[in-house]
Amino acid sequence: MTSVQDALALIKRGAEELIVEDDLVKKLESGRPLRIKAGFDPTAPDLHLGHTVLINKLKQFQDLGHQVLFLIGDFTGMIGDPTGKSATRPPLTKEQVAQNAQTYKEQVFKILDPALTTVMFNSEWMEKLSAADMIKLAGQYTVARMLERDDFSKRFKGEQSIAVHEFLYPLVQGYDSVAMRADVELGGTDQKFNLLMGRTLQKAAGQEPQTILMMPLLEGLDGVQKMSKSLNNYVGVNDAPGEMYTKLLSLPDAMIWRYFELLSFRTMDEISSLKADVDNGRNPQEVKDLFAREIIERFHDKESAEGAHKSAGNRVGLGDIPENVPEVDVDAEGQQELPISAVLRLAGLVKNGAAAKDVLSRGAVFVDGNKVDGTVKITVRHRVVIQAGKKKIARVILK
Amino acid sequence: MTSVQDALALIKRGAEELIVEDDLVKKLESGRPLRIKAGFDPTAPDLHLGHTVLINKLKQFQDLGHQVLFLIGDFTGMIGDPTGKSATRPPLTKEQVAQNAQTYKEQVFKILDPALTTVMFNSEWMEKLSAADMIKLAGQYTVARMLERDDFSKRFKGEQSIAVHEFLYPLVQGYDSVAMRADVELGGTDQKFNLLMGRTLQKAAGQEPQTILMMPLLEGLDGVQKMSKSLNNYVGVNDAPGEMYTKLLSLPDAMIWRYFELLSFRTMDEISSLKADVDNGRNPQEVKDLFAREIIERFHDKESAEGAHKSAGNRVGLGDIPENVPEVDVDAEGQQELPISAVLRLAGLVKNGAAAKDVLSRGAVFVDGNKVDGTVKITVRHRVVIQAGKKKIARVILK
Repeated sequence: MTSVQDALALIKRGAEELIVEDDLVKKLESGRPLRIKAGFDPTAPDLHLGHTVLINKLKQFQDLGHQVLFLIGDFTGMIGDPTGKSATRPPLTKEQVAQNAQTYKEQVFKILDPALTTVMFNSEWMEKLSAADMIKLAGQYTVARMLERDDFSKRFKGEQSIAVHEFLYPLVQGYDSVAMRADVELGGTDQKFNLLMGRTLQKAAGQEPQTILMMPLLEGLDGVQKMSKSLNNYVGVNDAPGEMYTKLLSLPDAMIWRYFELLSFRTMDEISSLKADVDNGRNPQEVKDLFAREIIERFHDKESAEGAHKSAGNRVGLGDIPENVPEVDVDAEGQQELPISAVLRLAGLVKNGAAAKDVLSRGAVFVDGNKVDGTVKITVRHRVVIQAGKKKIARVILK
Repeated sequence: MTSVQDALALIKRGAEELIVEDDLVKKLESGRPLRIKAGFDPTAPDLHLGHTVLINKLKQFQDLGHQVLFLIGDFTGMIGDPTGKSATRPPLTKEQVAQNAQTYKEQVFKILDPALTTVMFNSEWMEKLSAADMIKLAGQYTVARMLERDDFSKRFKGEQSIAVHEFLYPLVQGYDSVAMRADVELGGTDQKFNLLMGRTLQKAAGQEPQTILMMPLLEGLDGVQKMSKSLNNYVGVNDAPGEMYTKLLSLPDAMIWRYFELLSFRTMDEISSLKADVDNGRNPQEVKDLFAREIIERFHDKESAEGAHKSAGNRVGLGDIPENVPEVDVDAEGQQELPISAVLRLAGLVKNGAAAKDVLSRGAVFVDGNKVDGTVKITVRHRVVIQAGKKKIARVILK
């Protein structure tokens, strides 16, 4: 049994802000399993380590015996863009939501314990709400306070349009906390306004307001900007072992301890001791190696973790991989894996089946820096760097 | 058959603004009966002549063969005040709405033809709308444009709070036009924003936008301020004949022609001829007498119209009615009428039943200036001035 003080220390590890600590202490002291809410986007999840900062925190709550409510915000996703202006945001179907939920599970259950995780969909309660209920909810908040939200405030001042329905979405998120009777809600620091809305609406509904715990947004591999796919400074949870290893060993030394605090499950004591080693002259690359192995084992397995440095080493040794490898999505057409020859063709690395056969027989195809033959298959959702001869290279993901 | 030009002239009589005239002409030229929408508050209606400016205009549309859609906005009335701040605005029940609709009918069918009037309730379609539908509706309009509405703009600048649901109400009113497929909507000039919303939402729904016709707000008997119960410058449609007569004959001469234009069903030619008479020396009181008789006949009957000047004369002759008679509401406890003795007691004009009997037997009770005995009954919703002896006087309404 962990003491309340130890539990609190673990919960606060790496966190940016906690509202309100005293209330959380009381909840922890009650000894009952708390209901820990975290909301996720219902669009196709393709998680990177930045996302796992929050998921790791959920895992720590589970380790302390609490119940994780993994909320997929499908209600608004199924509405799409009500202004009709965004052709890129078509409404999701129930089937797509279910598919995306499945993909989420495959990824997050590498961290979370399925037995202590309840996956919820807010359409469950939001679809029961009438227009009148929505109006009543909207009566709980003022326009002026809504315009205090950072992005609204900026857009309003900048005379960029805000559609009225955008004022309803924070209310929906807040109402989720009421419907879920959340004790704690986790979110990024950019979610503060919406997290506080949960407290407001819970109070109005006569519930004890949820504690909110805000996690920082993780910097990417450049050590400066927020980790994101579009900035290409990320490590995807579906990246292949060699890819993960190479990326993580390229991390600036100054970032090591932040990554340890937010992404490692080593205790803070262990981390301090590693830091002392480096301060006393240990090569930081050795510590990054330890870190990379922990991460690779989490998302793949022990064997991959142990072998990763080899393939990464080989790959780096090839010296042929440029910095900006073009990304190519390949449609796996419902298959779980495809033979390398098909992937070469679909990714546009060869012109036709004959060319694929040719380049493979020449031993000129490398996957993540490892030479492969025609028997190799590529699995969906694993991002791999494929070289076909000296001139053709791409970062490929099968979807 | 009225020509389109004559129809247009009648429609524009007294109107403040018409958007868009050319479109209305096309609709009139089509020859089909148009769907004329006007919305009314679902709370207990107690109409005065100011309200009838709009109802008279509906009557003119009926005379031209069009269909009046008399909309009672019960949906928001049944929500009440979603902020919970206004104790004075409890949600209406279905029964209260039905009761109020009945009261409306009793009053407006003195002007409108029931056969050409459809009484509608927006709860009929709004209760079918889901929270998602409300969100989609809200996506049709921006926060900035909503804040352009006069009262919102003033309150926002004055840092007075606007609850978010208030942004949804104009959308509901606009959606009513979509659900009703309105061709024309009538409203006061203060309703311009909401009337235009109907056009916006109809266009978005692929309908031809409604023509909007705005009527002015009628000045009260003081000739300056808007007619309203709280300013006590009004003539209620349930006022007794003598009361109506006295009030209308007190109208400032300068207001006569405005009242004629907006409230009389005489043609503009007839009115011009009366104006010429006055310009040539006819006593304006004679013209007010003609006007008062038309109004009294409309809301009571021909006989009352002919007798009203006598009772009004008597009453004025009494000389005992002060300018500011206190108003008293009496709870009729579900009865349609009450004996005068009970009303005297309930209005606090006498202490008890014995005192009522006494004052009645002394012949010291006057109703609207007419001496009455104990057999007289007072009808609910008729506002009467009751005197009991020389010192007790009140303007009483049974509710």
